[in-house]
This record gives sequence, structure tokens and C-alpha cells, in this order.
Amino acid sequence: MKLHNYFRSSASFRVRIALELKGVTYEYLPVHLVKGEHKQEAYSAVSPSGLVPTLVTDEGERIGQSMAIIEYLDETHPQPPLLPRDPLGRARVRALAQLIACEIHPLNNLRVLKYLVRELKVPEEAKNGWYRHWVRDGLLAFERELAQLPRGTYCYGDTPTLADCCLVPQIFNAQRFKTDLSGLDRTMAAFDNCMKHPAFQKAQPSNCPDNEP
Amino acid sequence: MKLHNYFRSSASFRVRIALELKGVTYEYLPVHLVKGEHKQEAYSAVSPSGLVPTLVTDEGERIGQSMAIIEYLDETHPQPPLLPRDPLGRARVRALAQLIACEIHPLNNLRVLKYLVRELKVPEEAKNGWYRHWVRDGLLAFERELAQLPRGTYCYGDTPTLADCCLVPQIFNAQRFKTDLSGLDRTMAAFDNCMKHPAFQKAQPSNCPDNEP
Repeated sequence: MKLHNYFRSSASFRVRIALELKGVTYEYLPVHLVKGEHKQEAYSAVSPSGLVPTLVTDEGERIGQSMAIIEYLDETHPQPPLLPRDPLGRARVRALAQLIACEIHPLNNLRVLKYLVRELKVPEEAKNGWYRHWVRDGLLAFERELAQLPRGTYCYGDTPTLADCCLVPQIFNAQRFKTDLSGLDRTMAAFDNCMKHPAFQKAQPSNCPDNEP
Repeated sequence: MKLHNYFRSSASFRVRIALELKGVTYEYLPVHLVKGEHKQEAYSAVSPSGLVPTLVTDEGERIGQSMAIIEYLDETHPQPPLLPRDPLGRARVRALAQLIACEIHPLNNLRVLKYLVRELKVPEEAKNGWYRHWVRDGLLAFERELAQLPRGTYCYGDTPTLADCCLVPQIFNAQRFKTDLSGLDRTMAAFDNCMKHPAFQKAQPSNCPDNEP
């Protein structure tokens, strides 16, 4: 398999974690978002929507959207499972993942931050305030949802799931923007346990070939 | 089943469509977002994250996040299926759904628009420009992705899927904000076909008990 991705893209990071958890080897194809490589013609042929990550299967099929890719990997490489077996458990894990992927991350995308600054003339400090506001607000909601669930090593139970694949990159981003992470006990305990797992370690931005310190 | 929802919430609308497609009867429990009912204590007990929709199963389990709810309905009420049977087809449909649910809709949420106006002092016209920008930009990407797939009655094939459940509410929103919808031939053909289907008709905001014309 091949993965078109960018070291700092958190959607890319989610998929890298899933690939490591599944033990799937893949070719790393960097797309430099800050240089705008995702908008160039070469990449449009890979991803008509111009987004990273894109997974290319061994059959040459291209799949976009990180959660769709991870579910595909889970269906085609079932071990270890990244979703529980029961429909209610699956719904709980998907809802946690979507709380990050639909409520937090879209507001902090590079293109959104650029629009705030360039089109809406939002000052740098207010832009950073926007970033921290949505991350903290969203993670507090995530913490309240976790508090309803039985306590486990990870977000849901004692094995990593799709929810952990989404949580870890979001915490990396939060830390990079110096977001207040107090009062997130369950969330940060899950994060800390993830970071003790070699798959999460290996997938992190600093271990990517296109990493820029 | 019960559905806590709001007539104009497009995430709620997605789930109403799925329930109608499945032929599942449910109790409609309105949560008035503009009046802030989702932030009140009574609703926090239902949804710790304070978001609509929330599905309450016959066993009293609460599930949040529209795509997680629809996948749960699809797993527990398999007919008619809202996802293809093959992993690649499922990935295609999920990616289309997420292109709307993760790339377009989060930027146009009521709370985001409020933050732009109240915190960032963005003028009304620039706020509407923001709305239209992300909807149009996202739908053009959606159209380019559709163009890669075999043509069918709906977004993917000849039966409605999760992708159609997400598309239709987004088009309703786009029309309400007078977004330019030119050049979206495949997308609008799928939308038009959905609107000939009684499930989509029945689920629309104007048929909701809490509808305000």
C-alpha cells in the first residue's frame, strides 16, 4: 500500500497509527501542504478533492478521508480490530472519533486558519484564540462523554480503537498551540497510555521522513 | 426509539432520513438550538457533549454523532442497506459522507457562525461569505469525487446510502444561504433524485413538528 500524507496533518497521523496497529507496511509519499503541493495537478490526479491523506491499495484503488480509510483497513485487515464487535460499542467508538473529526479538527485546518487571516483579517492572536477555543471546548465535551463510559486503558476498553487514532493527533496539535489541557483526566490518561504503545510512537510526526523539526 | 433533534440541524436531518429509509418509527423530541436548549441541564443528561442529534434506543442507550447513529441503524436494521457490501464501496460511500460531515458542515455550524460575529467581530456580510465559501468549495470537491465514480441514480449506485443522507441536508443549507450551486451536475442530479424519494421528503425540516416557517 501507499499513503499520500504529510507529517503534520493530523488526519494523516490517524491513518499512520492505524497502519502501524495493523502491522501493514506502506510506502510513505509526502505531500507538502504548506508548499501547496496538495493543490498541484500531480496530486489532483490522486485526490480530486485535494486532501491528504489518500491511501492507495495494492490494487491501485485510491481512498480518501481518514476515518473511511481506517474503517476500510479494519474490514480488510481485521486483526487487531479497531472497533468493538457489538453495534452499540461500535457506535460509541465512532461517536468519540467523530467528536474529534467533525467537531474539533475541521475548525483548525490549515486552510481555515489561512482564510481567517487572509480573508477576514483576523489578527494572529485572535486566530490562535480561535484555535485554542475550539480544541478546548471540544476536548471538554470529549471528556464528558468518556466519563459516561467504563474506564479502560484507552478511550474505549483495553485495546486501541478508531477513537484513539483520532485523539492522539488532536492532542499533539493542542500541545503545539499551547492549549490548556487541564481537567481532561480521562482523555489525557488515554493519550498517555497510547503514547506508551509502539504503534503510536512510530506513527508520530517526528518519525516521518518529511518531518521538519 | 427516540430522537432528540432540531428541525433545522442538518446532522439531525441526516438521521431522520436514515430512520425513514429504514422504516423505523420514532418519537420526535425537539431541542431548540437557537433558544440554547442544548446547553441546558435537562439536555446535558441526555448528551454530555450538548449536541444534537441523540438517538435513544429501545433499551435506553443514548448514541450521539449522526454518522455513528446511521451506521448503528444500518447494523441493527440491515434492510435496506445504507452502505454497499464490499469494503471498497463502503469506503467510497463513507468518504463522500465525510467530505460533507468533516469538511463542509463543521464550518457552518451555528456555534461557529456565532463565534465569528461575537468574538471575532466579523460583519454579517463577511460571515455569509464565509458560509458560502466553504459550502461551495466543499461541494466542488464533492463533485470532482463523484465524477470519478460510475454514474447512478444516487451518489453511489442506484439505492440511497449514507452519502445521500449527508448530501441532502447540506444542499438545503446551501440553498437557504443562497450559495452558488452551478457546475455541480452530478451532485445536484443525486440531490434531485433523493428529493423524489418519500423518505427524504418526509424527513425534511418543513415536515418536522418543531418547524418554524
